[in-house]
Amino acid sequence: MKAHVLFSGGKDSSLSAMILEPYFEVRLVTCNFGILPTGEVAKQIADELGFSHMVIQPPMEILENAAEIVQKDGFPNGAINYIHRQVLEILAKTDGVELIADGLRRDDRVPHLEQSEIQSFEDRHKVLYCSPLMGFGRFTINKMIESNLVITEEESAVILKCDYEAELREYLYRELGEDETHKHFPKSHKQSRVISRLRKQESEN
Amino acid sequence: MKAHVLFSGGKDSSLSAMILEPYFEVRLVTCNFGILPTGEVAKQIADELGFSHMVIQPPMEILENAAEIVQKDGFPNGAINYIHRQVLEILAKTDGVELIADGLRRDDRVPHLEQSEIQSFEDRHKVLYCSPLMGFGRFTINKMIESNLVITEEESAVILKCDYEAELREYLYRELGEDETHKHFPKSHKQSRVISRLRKQESEN
Repeated sequence: MKAHVLFSGGKDSSLSAMILEPYFEVRLVTCNFGILPTGEVAKQIADELGFSHMVIQPPMEILENAAEIVQKDGFPNGAINYIHRQVLEILAKTDGVELIADGLRRDDRVPHLEQSEIQSFEDRHKVLYCSPLMGFGRFTINKMIESNLVITEEESAVILKCDYEAELREYLYRELGEDETHKHFPKSHKQSRVISRLRKQESEN
Repeated sequence: MKAHVLFSGGKDSSLSAMILEPYFEVRLVTCNFGILPTGEVAKQIADELGFSHMVIQPPMEILENAAEIVQKDGFPNGAINYIHRQVLEILAKTDGVELIADGLRRDDRVPHLEQSEIQSFEDRHKVLYCSPLMGFGRFTINKMIESNLVITEEESAVILKCDYEAELREYLYRELGEDETHKHFPKSHKQSRVISRLRKQESEN
């Protein structure tokens, strides 16, 4: 069975894919609205990790709606939640998609799906959905990552993370300028991105 | 890092251990109150799976309290929840235990731990706790199991499952007799137990 794993180039979505790897034919999926080259960057990281990769480009309307939600709420959580749900819907309708996974953790505040939403999503689309890290906390995940992935941590201005927030922030920046954007997103913000994978044979040699 | 995985000999706890295997030194742990030989049966299955195994014997008082909870509630959920929490506490205080895992799934009703309880448990005992299957639903788990484990499914009267319920039911049966026990536990009840593991090389040869 194929598993389509939503992929931001970060630690959590990488580890989610690695957990599923022994059980499914994993394909990484990055969402791109055409604002930043997140699809290309994510593809390079996917190559490093040894996974096949595809980009989905949702309608621009979704990013526009998300920008409105940020401005209305004053912070990005609701908008991130909104984009994630829309992307799940689009992916579920894509040919050949049977199982969708994302990188959500136990202590993630957003995106967050309730059990009843998950049930409804799986039933409506006749797909399976899972979040391989949902039963793990941050410290346990860090332990799992440290011997398996090489990570870089930099300011979000320095590295391009291929998540919803990167394009949403850039979109707001272009539409409304720096001051308005920084009302809703912190100016300085550490991001992590995966560089490469430590394979068993490498760490043993 | 060591991971101590609570193990009932069933599909869920076996798969939980297999998910952790690439990242931790896994040891399976079966809880036994001395009522049924669940420790020995679980040890045999652990050997089949290729994991080390230990038995913990909590104070009999815990099973007695659980039996009272069943009779008060009229169904076993609260008692199972109670035993699970007590066992987690005992395991967390055991020498050399740094990370505790259990086989809880997304759609399990019991045992169930709230996020705030998990946080408190980890903080109080300076241990990590995870439930590797918490982000997975039943159908996805079955897909993961079907190419990796050989399972038998039988009436609970036929096979001995090494979970809390097996000893709790037997304890009630001995104390209160068949009629009283079957008020709280269904008479006929399909159980599954792991027989062996399909290793990659075996399924490819």
